Amino acid sequence: MRYSKLLLPTTKETPAEAEVISHQLLLRAGFIRKLTSGLYTYLPLGFMALQKVSQIVREEMNRAGAQELLMPMVQPGDLWRETGRWQKYGAELLRFKDRHDRDYCLGPTHEEVITDLARRELQSYRQLPVNLYQIQTKFRDEIRPRFGLMRGREFIMKDAYSFDVSDEAASESYQKMYDAYQRIFARCGLEFRAVEADTGSIGGSFSHEFMVLADTGEDTLVICKACSYAANVEKAAVVLPEKTPVQKEPAELTRVETPGMKKVDRVAEFLGVSPADIIKTMVYLADGEPVAVLVRGDREVQDVKLGNILGATEVELADDDTVWKLTRLPVGYIGPREIPIRTVADQEVMRMVNAVTGANEKGYHLTGVNPGRDFTPDLVGDLRQITTEDPCPSCGGQLELTRGIEVGHIFKLGTSYSQAMNATFQDREGGEKPFVMGCYGIGVSRVVAAAIEQNHDKNGIIFPLPLAPFQVILLNLGLNNEETTRAAEGLYEDLQARGIEVLYDDRDERPGSKFKDADLIGIPYRITVGKTYEKEGRVELRRRRDGETTTIDYDGAADHVASLIEDELSRLR
Amino acid sequence: MRYSKLLLPTTKETPAEAEVISHQLLLRAGFIRKLTSGLYTYLPLGFMALQKVSQIVREEMNRAGAQELLMPMVQPGDLWRETGRWQKYGAELLRFKDRHDRDYCLGPTHEEVITDLARRELQSYRQLPVNLYQIQTKFRDEIRPRFGLMRGREFIMKDAYSFDVSDEAASESYQKMYDAYQRIFARCGLEFRAVEADTGSIGGSFSHEFMVLADTGEDTLVICKACSYAANVEKAAVVLPEKTPVQKEPAELTRVETPGMKKVDRVAEFLGVSPADIIKTMVYLADGEPVAVLVRGDREVQDVKLGNILGATEVELADDDTVWKLTRLPVGYIGPREIPIRTVADQEVMRMVNAVTGANEKGYHLTGVNPGRDFTPDLVGDLRQITTEDPCPSCGGQLELTRGIEVGHIFKLGTSYSQAMNATFQDREGGEKPFVMGCYGIGVSRVVAAAIEQNHDKNGIIFPLPLAPFQVILLNLGLNNEETTRAAEGLYEDLQARGIEVLYDDRDERPGSKFKDADLIGIPYRITVGKTYEKEGRVELRRRRDGETTTIDYDGAADHVASLIEDELSRLR
Repeated sequence: MRYSKLLLPTTKETPAEAEVISHQLLLRAGFIRKLTSGLYTYLPLGFMALQKVSQIVREEMNRAGAQELLMPMVQPGDLWRETGRWQKYGAELLRFKDRHDRDYCLGPTHEEVITDLARRELQSYRQLPVNLYQIQTKFRDEIRPRFGLMRGREFIMKDAYSFDVSDEAASESYQKMYDAYQRIFARCGLEFRAVEADTGSIGGSFSHEFMVLADTGEDTLVICKACSYAANVEKAAVVLPEKTPVQKEPAELTRVETPGMKKVDRVAEFLGVSPADIIKTMVYLADGEPVAVLVRGDREVQDVKLGNILGATEVELADDDTVWKLTRLPVGYIGPREIPIRTVADQEVMRMVNAVTGANEKGYHLTGVNPGRDFTPDLVGDLRQITTEDPCPSCGGQLELTRGIEVGHIFKLGTSYSQAMNATFQDREGGEKPFVMGCYGIGVSRVVAAAIEQNHDKNGIIFPLPLAPFQVILLNLGLNNEETTRAAEGLYEDLQARGIEVLYDDRDERPGSKFKDADLIGIPYRITVGKTYEKEGRVELRRRRDGETTTIDYDGAADHVASLIEDELSRLR
Repeated sequence: MRYSKLLLPTTKETPAEAEVISHQLLLRAGFIRKLTSGLYTYLPLGFMALQKVSQIVREEMNRAGAQELLMPMVQPGDLWRETGRWQKYGAELLRFKDRHDRDYCLGPTHEEVITDLARRELQSYRQLPVNLYQIQTKFRDEIRPRFGLMRGREFIMKDAYSFDVSDEAASESYQKMYDAYQRIFARCGLEFRAVEADTGSIGGSFSHEFMVLADTGEDTLVICKACSYAANVEKAAVVLPEKTPVQKEPAELTRVETPGMKKVDRVAEFLGVSPADIIKTMVYLADGEPVAVLVRGDREVQDVKLGNILGATEVELADDDTVWKLTRLPVGYIGPREIPIRTVADQEVMRMVNAVTGANEKGYHLTGVNPGRDFTPDLVGDLRQITTEDPCPSCGGQLELTRGIEVGHIFKLGTSYSQAMNATFQDREGGEKPFVMGCYGIGVSRVVAAAIEQNHDKNGIIFPLPLAPFQVILLNLGLNNEETTRAAEGLYEDLQARGIEVLYDDRDERPGSKFKDADLIGIPYRITVGKTYEKEGRVELRRRRDGETTTIDYDGAADHVASLIEDELSRLR
């Protein structure tokens, strides 16, 4: 492709609206343009990068025995009513009526549609297993779309759905997808990690997320240094040490004045105790209902775990006004003793002896508080965030935390959808059984953004070779020199003849501007035909990732680069 | 691909809902399944056929210098307000509000979005010409979706938009697309014809439709036997012969009793005249307003021409009740003389001498009616359907009529969108000029349906080789014979090794059922490994299109078929 013929509007300025690096660089490098909030046009280079990801996904899905199809993006509300998600799914589900006043939505996911297809077309165990997938534009009406392709309203997803005769067979289908996803992200040239994950609103019994590792990731991952354990902190179970015999004698419950002491640290300092001796009591709203949540003073609540324990779709910390309105409790001095609302305690709290809590009275705390004796929570469970001081839940080893961007998520769904929709098949014995299902997503457009979050420097994008819109950018720095231009054009043809994807910068621009654009758009190999060619018949070859630069003979240049590219790609296959 | 692993649910029964053959066969052959009115899932074979069309479209668009991008399917209402189409576009434009109560629509076409992109990204004549395209699912909320993929609500379209500095340059861009479309449909292996077309609601000055020729087509085409003229009858101009001197003396206007004579034929018979002597007067609603339309008694009104003359978006014949309610005129006896509503006459009517018309009085007609003397229409123009008796508007030669299915449409838009949206560039002299635009559509999913309308027999689909989901279907009729099965599996591998797309029917089914399915899904070449192999080491090769069957040596079979396929494809390139 000739640069002069390409719609590739690079910019120097970082757009003010773009908070994260991938968003900034995708805009600056001319890959995307915003239409309106959360809606982006993929310009030619952006589209090429998408196609690269899609092609890898397609090949590996097919290799794993999945079949590609394409379902409608517009879905009838009646199907969603069958699973109850018409009501349960929040405002992210964009609902509308057609001209005949019938309910529809824009598909954010396709469990209902595919289960409807399965119940019509799959009658017998002999037709199973089946795994069906599509690559399609989805829509979720995010309340605050942000971060460009990371959290848009429209996005491109590969979604796959498996149907099996039994739980064991479904586990095999799940494992095939797990393996396929490993191959997909490896072939994309990304550093990634599969982690155990919460199943969230999709439901189901078991799931893994595939995380592209990046400091800028929204998700926190916990990884064991000793074994293969890796999980999202939303999921990672805190394992308490074997219960040690109580060292301290239970003390007497005492009300103490703590004027103006609303924060854990202030109270601890004032009373001469450690934050680990304090029970923090926070009022959350769980699907709108107030609930008091108890964790040790030095711990953090993990909202996803909390929601799971409470069986709530949405949990959020209540603000001070809301707490007062709903409970008449004094924020900063709340405690579990004789509290008028439901309480849920982290398991660790129940081990505490002679703890400090709020007294539910402004300016007062209680000391010598002993769980079980002085208060009993309605629910107890694992609801705090894991830390690197906790042991690995699998082997007891040392944990470390890192950050990642979710690009894939696989779920063992079980029979929740098939039962709700009465989707059954005839088993070997002639009985009717619900399909055992799995579902498997990859955020195709998000992979492009995540690749950039992981691979960039101050000059721009550094595309992994398999995802780059072009493998080579060829700069002609001697446009006014006939011989140089002939050489550049010749090399352009030679590279293409070898199947290499080349962007040929034939623009009448200064060298500095060509170099800057080449760096910004992140093409893995840069070849420059210029002065060195005129003097010595050599061209400059530069690798974008590490800036390593060599000069090579013009004559063997195309072969040399072809073999570099082939080597690099074959290492990822 | 192994048939046993493929979701390919063929059926014997013709679904009652399917009126046209492509719809019937797409359902029966397991290519599509209906989700709900106008919304279809493409099953694996249907998706493969779509991909075949898309790939040909993509290659030829790229070859013509167009660049692929991808715009959002959800579009903000504000952009559509700029061109006035938010109001003008009918209920087919599905409008809805997002969670923030802002107006959006599901894109049926993308002129507004692309023009918005152009005005932001294209500043200078130096960046032009540009031609941008996408292949995308569109939505039109058809009032009566029907005919399967022929007129669905969701459909897949390739839409391209060109931006040029001048009308001449835009004509060049248009010609490039015209040529590209010729190559695309030729490479699809379809019989087709480019015809002059009405520009319809998209607007613009000039357009061609690409029609797949099929007896079942919704469109009527007129083609000259002598020259290259071809047009949609909606567009084809009727050229009247040179005006001949009036033969007849004008007679006296006379009111005659015609009891119960409401039809042209009855009146003609009763009065002893020819239908060509009668002026038919029909009341139409043009955007809701009644208008009397006059044509010769033996002619048909062409609604599209009528709409264009009236400048109306929608024209339809009013039913008898409506005529009475709006005009108090007696249907069957209406005439242009002293009629209280607006009249529009076909040009031919003005040539008539001593015509018969209704008297606007129940049971009476007028004879000796002479246009100009006895009535004067408000508008006169070419508003009747052309016939094979009319001369070719281009060369005067003999015309013939045929039917076609519109699969592509190209428009010279001019500056209507760019002016409405203030989309300008700086020209060579430094002035600001609106882009001169063109737009170019191909109904990708409709091409699949049209291919079937044109190519089928009583046993099923007969796919043109370039569009077939598989090039070869290989039947193993000796599943219980180890040697035969080994041979079939070996041939399956040999064919694949030669890059041939093979569907291997490894199912445990009766031969008759395998033959039937092979015919139904329309794979161009069928190879059967069975008894003939066991006896003579030969396999049967059958061509779907003409049923020509030969037996060939097993050993050279893969090479033989590979060369047949290569020959056939190269003839289309």
